[in-house]
Amino acid sequence: MSLLDNLQWRYATKKYDPSRKVGEEEIKKIVEAARLAPTSSGLQQFRVIVISNQELKEKIVPIAKGQQTVADCSHLLVFAAWDKYTEERIDSIFNRITEERSLPPEQFKNYTDMLKSVYLNQSADENFVHTARQAYIGFALAIAEAAELKIDSTPMEGFDSDQLDELLNLREKGLRSVTILAVGYRDAENDWLVNMKKVRNPSEEFALELK
Amino acid sequence: MSLLDNLQWRYATKKYDPSRKVGEEEIKKIVEAARLAPTSSGLQQFRVIVISNQELKEKIVPIAKGQQTVADCSHLLVFAAWDKYTEERIDSIFNRITEERSLPPEQFKNYTDMLKSVYLNQSADENFVHTARQAYIGFALAIAEAAELKIDSTPMEGFDSDQLDELLNLREKGLRSVTILAVGYRDAENDWLVNMKKVRNPSEEFALELK
Repeated sequence: MSLLDNLQWRYATKKYDPSRKVGEEEIKKIVEAARLAPTSSGLQQFRVIVISNQELKEKIVPIAKGQQTVADCSHLLVFAAWDKYTEERIDSIFNRITEERSLPPEQFKNYTDMLKSVYLNQSADENFVHTARQAYIGFALAIAEAAELKIDSTPMEGFDSDQLDELLNLREKGLRSVTILAVGYRDAENDWLVNMKKVRNPSEEFALELK
Repeated sequence: MSLLDNLQWRYATKKYDPSRKVGEEEIKKIVEAARLAPTSSGLQQFRVIVISNQELKEKIVPIAKGQQTVADCSHLLVFAAWDKYTEERIDSIFNRITEERSLPPEQFKNYTDMLKSVYLNQSADENFVHTARQAYIGFALAIAEAAELKIDSTPMEGFDSDQLDELLNLREKGLRSVTILAVGYRDAENDWLVNMKKVRNPSEEFALELK
């Protein structure tokens, strides 16, 4: 099936069958789509936290406005972005790039100097506006990969990010939670959304052509 | 080819063959992937502006740090998000949803009241932080669709959004440019990046498993 068919197939699953678990290989593929996501300057400003532990998922329910989806899904993926840019983070990525591509160590010096002069002169909050956007690229590709594998998913923003950061000790890792994705298998009989028509703005309103 | 194969295939094309144009049907499919993107509360807080006019693309080069990619690509897609939430925008989407699903008109009243109480009490800038994130979901899916069609693309953030908004009269439409995507066909002989290894954080660093 094509990506467009997969995007038509998927929907924001509201009710999971808690007895059906997604295989580890499939979870790896979903995370891999996020890992391969393009990001600004190739910095990969986000990470994915994969949660299958039932007790931990249940602890997240009250943090996510009581949504039972979080407990009933098979795995919960937390997309967490860098809390800020640092010289070390930028250098670390470009050191890897020069090494893996066998380039001279100073190859990207002008470029990384430019990145540092932009980002290190912003506040951490301004940095996070940018890093969080990158997390959404990975988030979208993970949703697409799940759909390709015919695994249901639910993109969720309705949670208290400060509380989730605390529960998962994300701040200590220099990360802040941005968005979460429940994955699993639908409980079609009990999901009110499963048979509802997908509604989008018509193409002629959505796209504006300047020829 | 699978999504993962397509993501391995793609790269941020640095040099396009200006003589090769992408077909209209293919451009429509790339935009369609963005149109089908899931967004927060289904609000589709962004639009895609499709630019094929050479003169207009050339006017964008100086706005995009002189990057010739913008002129040489076949089409330039501008992802622009709502400048802010309004009662009318929220109602308009949910009116469409209730209509297309043949639901009672008041079906989502509590939900839209909640959305309004959250978003209309934020500043326009706070709203835009959120709407811009949604644009990235569509952006990522457009990149994936282009890759599936074996069309090259370049995700680009390096441009002056205020100047681009002015050139395209986006503010009058209640939109602000967020990110742009050049699409076209690579000029492989003159693209320094084409044969470079794709570098990413290793899986074990990128994903953190909590079992």
